[in-house]
Amino acid sequence: MIFSAIPVRTRERYEFVSITDEIRRAVSEAGVEEGLCVISSAHTTAGVTVNEDYDPDVGRDLAAACEALIKSLDVRFEHAEGNSDSHFLTSFFGGTQHLLVRGGELDLGRWQGVFMAEFDGPRQRTVRVAVF
Amino acid sequence: MIFSAIPVRTRERYEFVSITDEIRRAVSEAGVEEGLCVISSAHTTAGVTVNEDYDPDVGRDLAAACEALIKSLDVRFEHAEGNSDSHFLTSFFGGTQHLLVRGGELDLGRWQGVFMAEFDGPRQRTVRVAVF
Amino acid sequence: MIFSAIPVRTRERYEFVSITDEIRRAVSEAGVEEGLCVISSAHTTAGVTVNEDYDPDVGRDLAAACEALIKSLDVRFEHAEGNSDSHFLTSFFGGTQHLLVRGGELDLGRWQGVFMAEFDGPRQRTVRVAVF
Repeated sequence: MIFSAIPVRTRERYEFVSITDEIRRAVSEAGVEEGLCVISSAHTTAGVTVNEDYDPDVGRDLAAACEALIKSLDVRFEHAEGNSDSHFLTSFFGGTQHLLVRGGELDLGRWQGVFMAEFDGPRQRTVRVAVF
Repeated sequence: MIFSAIPVRTRERYEFVSITDEIRRAVSEAGVEEGLCVISSAHTTAGVTVNEDYDPDVGRDLAAACEALIKSLDVRFEHAEGNSDSHFLTSFFGGTQHLLVRGGELDLGRWQGVFMAEFDGPRQRTVRVAVF
Repeated sequence: MIFSAIPVRTRERYEFVSITDEIRRAVSEAGVEEGLCVISSAHTTAGVTVNEDYDPDVGRDLAAACEALIKSLDVRFEHAEGNSDSHFLTSFFGGTQHLLVRGGELDLGRWQGVFMAEFDGPRQRTVRVAVF
């Protein structure tokens, strides 16, 4: 297992920050020809997701949909920190993704990229990358 | 790593297509006694999910719930292709699943099956299967 | 692969039951220094998720948000068992999580824990843990 940690700075409360280049670099530096890349958020109010990393409107629309989803819920949260929406969205999107490594490179589809999914920003975050 | 690609034809805009038999066959052909099976969508508007593959109403209800969820959101999307709902649902369901392989077979629970989760069909899709 | 099965008793229809201690113990007993821990629900109406395991209000708020989400949907389900909401939430949260093992221990962030996510309880459930 080759491990690395990637710092991510987020700027909005809900925000999808592309980390595709950083993950590609980590995989390339790991020097693994064939295997599995595990990408993991160390946080409970921010996750990791795979989606289109071509038109930046996609990430913005994802954030807008998250906001609309939370607004649509008729619910009273008890958690004193006031960020239960962030915990909920983190579990929905998931905190960990795993992608294949083939030919020494991250095996992404044509439009796929990797995003830090921030649900309680702005914050300084860390993404952990392991290549097996 | 034994890799294979499975073509999937979808027929509806939102649709859950069982690929359980195809994944079982890929695992069986891989000849791995114990390990991990990674099932991955190469797309950003279609994912992969594990759910009940016994009563076909379950898959239809999942599609109906997705449609109702999107309709419940008071949001204006900007992405020019007009399929931000599909991107959103893909990140919710996830594009990759991983299942254990035990005794040379996919270790599914009694009712569990694997589905291609189509959110922008009908289309021709590809699912990637890797057995470690 | 070192495999173990953990029994989980749930008490509510929607409930997030911490299994962090049980998973830590399984990883510790596996004696693996560095690797991957795969945590998998054998069910189609209960999943596994990673979230804050410090303030118990977080788990209760997650359950409340699930209930509110289902109530917000204008949908008619067909599945005869009447638990399509449970199937839907299981696919949203996901049935499998994978976490890194480093230094012989589960590599969780400071606030992270592992939960059985029950969506059709109360029931007796099983979580499968494999350490690679």
